[in-house]
Amino acid sequence: MSDFPISRYPVPELEELPQDIRQRILDVQERSGFVPNVFLVLAHRPDEFRAFFAYHDALMDKDSGLSKAEREMIVVATSAANECQYCVVAHGAILRIRAKNPLIADQVATNYRKADLTERQKAMLDFALKVCNDAQSVTESDVAALTAQGFSEEDIWDIGAITAFFALSNRMANLVAMRPNDEFYAMGRG
Amino acid sequence: MSDFPISRYPVPELEELPQDIRQRILDVQERSGFVPNVFLVLAHRPDEFRAFFAYHDALMDKDSGLSKAEREMIVVATSAANECQYCVVAHGAILRIRAKNPLIADQVATNYRKADLTERQKAMLDFALKVCNDAQSVTESDVAALTAQGFSEEDIWDIGAITAFFALSNRMANLVAMRPNDEFYAMGRG
Amino acid sequence: MSDFPISRYPVPELEELPQDIRQRILDVQERSGFVPNVFLVLAHRPDEFRAFFAYHDALMDKDSGLSKAEREMIVVATSAANECQYCVVAHGAILRIRAKNPLIADQVATNYRKADLTERQKAMLDFALKVCNDAQSVTESDVAALTAQGFSEEDIWDIGAITAFFALSNRMANLVAMRPNDEFYAMGRG
Amino acid sequence: MSDFPISRYPVPELEELPQDIRQRILDVQERSGFVPNVFLVLAHRPDEFRAFFAYHDALMDKDSGLSKAEREMIVVATSAANECQYCVVAHGAILRIRAKNPLIADQVATNYRKADLTERQKAMLDFALKVCNDAQSVTESDVAALTAQGFSEEDIWDIGAITAFFALSNRMANLVAMRPNDEFYAMGRG
Amino acid sequence: MSDFPISRYPVPELEELPQDIRQRILDVQERSGFVPNVFLVLAHRPDEFRAFFAYHDALMDKDSGLSKAEREMIVVATSAANECQYCVVAHGAILRIRAKNPLIADQVATNYRKADLTERQKAMLDFALKVCNDAQSVTESDVAALTAQGFSEEDIWDIGAITAFFALSNRMANLVAMRPNDEFYAMGRG
Amino acid sequence: MSDFPISRYPVPELEELPQDIRQRILDVQERSGFVPNVFLVLAHRPDEFRAFFAYHDALMDKDSGLSKAEREMIVVATSAANECQYCVVAHGAILRIRAKNPLIADQVATNYRKADLTERQKAMLDFALKVCNDAQSVTESDVAALTAQGFSEEDIWDIGAITAFFALSNRMANLVAMRPNDEFYAMGRG
Repeated sequence: MSDFPISRYPVPELEELPQDIRQRILDVQERSGFVPNVFLVLAHRPDEFRAFFAYHDALMDKDSGLSKAEREMIVVATSAANECQYCVVAHGAILRIRAKNPLIADQVATNYRKADLTERQKAMLDFALKVCNDAQSVTESDVAALTAQGFSEEDIWDIGAITAFFALSNRMANLVAMRPNDEFYAMGRG
Repeated sequence: MSDFPISRYPVPELEELPQDIRQRILDVQERSGFVPNVFLVLAHRPDEFRAFFAYHDALMDKDSGLSKAEREMIVVATSAANECQYCVVAHGAILRIRAKNPLIADQVATNYRKADLTERQKAMLDFALKVCNDAQSVTESDVAALTAQGFSEEDIWDIGAITAFFALSNRMANLVAMRPNDEFYAMGRG
Repeated sequence: MSDFPISRYPVPELEELPQDIRQRILDVQERSGFVPNVFLVLAHRPDEFRAFFAYHDALMDKDSGLSKAEREMIVVATSAANECQYCVVAHGAILRIRAKNPLIADQVATNYRKADLTERQKAMLDFALKVCNDAQSVTESDVAALTAQGFSEEDIWDIGAITAFFALSNRMANLVAMRPNDEFYAMGRG
Repeated sequence: MSDFPISRYPVPELEELPQDIRQRILDVQERSGFVPNVFLVLAHRPDEFRAFFAYHDALMDKDSGLSKAEREMIVVATSAANECQYCVVAHGAILRIRAKNPLIADQVATNYRKADLTERQKAMLDFALKVCNDAQSVTESDVAALTAQGFSEEDIWDIGAITAFFALSNRMANLVAMRPNDEFYAMGRG
Repeated sequence: MSDFPISRYPVPELEELPQDIRQRILDVQERSGFVPNVFLVLAHRPDEFRAFFAYHDALMDKDSGLSKAEREMIVVATSAANECQYCVVAHGAILRIRAKNPLIADQVATNYRKADLTERQKAMLDFALKVCNDAQSVTESDVAALTAQGFSEEDIWDIGAITAFFALSNRMANLVAMRPNDEFYAMGRG
Repeated sequence: MSDFPISRYPVPELEELPQDIRQRILDVQERSGFVPNVFLVLAHRPDEFRAFFAYHDALMDKDSGLSKAEREMIVVATSAANECQYCVVAHGAILRIRAKNPLIADQVATNYRKADLTERQKAMLDFALKVCNDAQSVTESDVAALTAQGFSEEDIWDIGAITAFFALSNRMANLVAMRPNDEFYAMGRG
């Protein structure tokens, strides 16, 4: 593990943390084999930590017309547009695993228009990038392009809401200089 | 009250809502005299509603080195950059009230550099706008400009986190075409 | 009345001014009940003052296929894009009065695509914003979009010319830090 | 003379025009040997014509701390940024003549930072381009950069006002597809 | 000839140069009557010089579905977008000569949409500008717009490759502050 | 190996190619164990192929004040800004190998400001990105920032020229939809 700081802000010790937050961190450690830095870095502010992960789970863990891999594509494509190192590296790893495709994350991060995606997935990312960069100009014709690809109104909320949540997340990661764990870089490439 | 829809999505009736959400809405109605539309519109997704308002309260209601009026300045300035009608109109009203200044919200929404603010407040908004538009380029020299104005590291997190939270909020409002209540336009102008 | 300066430049006294300019200012004062600051600020340069208001009147006071309220919508939408505090606040007041609508100015200033406008008016503002931000790319297809909404060639000149005139006006106001009169903020909100 | 139309709009015959406008056109024809198309194109709207040229003359013909060549540099540099063919070609010709320099107009139009200009003139154009592209962000530090080069407050108004006037002029020329006279291209290159 | 430096870097004497480079320069001098500065400036790095001109000749001197004038239009339009003084001035001269049209270079440099071009040529430049400014977004619909104008797949490679080569060339010229020869300004205007 | 096309254009068979190009390809295959697609894709145009690789070698293989890893950092950072999938993936692999650092390529591609680089290397990339995105605005103060970090004038040419060469390369790769070999993704991550 490298010696670089993982945040511009103090990173709390596990034992200092409120019980619910400590438990969440121990759970993720057991499941993943390590603690993704976002948990430690955001634990500096327990109330914001709780809201952040509640929001994350409400969007990323629920049933949806979007597959889990598709949701990670949205995260990777919009986080790349926002130049968020933590989210591109960490969610790139998750995308490789969810999609069972070792190439897809680097493709989506660099230029999703050239990635090995379906037309439906490219339309999904066109919309996500518009919400990311220019939400004020979203019109019914943008929605119609998604409907034409078979997305429901609830799917469209999901695409937009995941993009909106990572608009928050990317800004926090850039603000605090959140460092991705070394483990993420090679995950899912086998 | 006008007849325009307040969301592209179905707006639930109060009685359909989970008890905790219904109670929160009744509380705000009692306090404000009306229900701000954001509560009704986001109640379409109860889990996201809960996380959204938990995040909001963690940033906007807590003690901070930033006054409540200053926090609303951040909301108004960055929401104007994102062309978010709901947040500019609703938080503009709150800013007028918090700052006891009937002119300040329109000034900040149009061009904060020309608003009746202190140098310290303009530096705060310079930073907020950078996190809003170009968080990837935030460097230690941006932080130093705030430190020189007396902001602490925790204040800087607050400025950035409020901006990040409204980056989410503005995108959701533009996505669902959230309409501000008519009541907000004239509040605090007396 | 607030004590803030209304211009970076010297503001002449009424009695120092040439007769025609003084008379114009007295006339507007009688009609409005106060002197909008733009008259006092631009009187620093009498020849430019005369040309400015002659141009203004030639566009804003004449008969046109655009209603007076529609012309003010163009002013407010493009002045907001140019972040011109004077024009958004002052012409926002005039728009509320001309349109007899207390909400419309704040809506148009923040995001005209979400304002309570007809499709025809939104097409008018799409064109105005293109002339404002990217006139070099205006093509016959932009014109055709207006023709399809029933605008005549002379109406199109009006839309473009009002936008062009406020491109000048907004830059002058930002250059000299022209301050809107306090009176404008609350006008037409009743 | 080429056969291309000089405007998207009807171009009046001299004899149809009001006396004052016809006289102005005859005067410029006598002085220049031809009628620059801007006079014929804008004569479609006599009141706007009068205001336009009154404004032009108030800025470009008066005494100023800026030489006439320097004022044309502002016109050429900002009109190039606005991709206005009429103003770059016509005022490029005037700049070559005023500066007695056959190279300067093409240099300023392409990249004024690499043109054969003094540091003072480059500072003048830095400011003009900021007023052209981003007037809302002009601050006292921009003004200070000009003061350091010896510009007075009145000179700064002139730089900004010329830029603002051509912001109008460039938009009108692009709107009506105003064509430069063939004569301008080769003038002052001898 | 003016006394301004033609490069930020040392400019070699002809006699110091390797034989093949010296011969190339003598040949161009004999053909043109003077040595275009690009040959002298890039000779500072002989290997890069050889590759640069080999690439240039492979695109600009070969048989192509694009006429030589059309290829120069691509150079002038994209070099103007990149604000490259050397390429706009030097290739503007070549364009005037190739097209036997004294007006066309200034028109294309300022705003190709308003230049005296065919619809086919405007479509060619629309594509070139997209490769210049936003190659990552080129899609099959951009290609289809060219095919509809009769361009072959090999023509499309030519348009893109000329744009790409001058993306390199413009950056080098701006990097080293390459000065166009005085001779170019007036060439082909007769 | 995946079945996706590696170019929008025909890809020649080795045996059809001119002897010198075939030999170059066989050499790289022997050295690398596979043929990077750029060699096969550009062989569609033999003269451009020869010039392209001559230019590449003149910059990337020669002695320089920049290490080979540093040169690859420039390629990766600017190719990411241009969203060039081939160059980010292929040169990312080379960067990992040259720098003996499995993390560095993804860091530089996403946000070089947050990468594990020295201040000197960040200054190098600041300059490269300016040449990539805004070469027309490069001034002596940009050069001075490099000189202050110990870069020589020849080093500065190298930084700029590598950036300029990949401005060409990225546009070609996006134009022809050049696909990176699957092998590159995992190289140097061990």
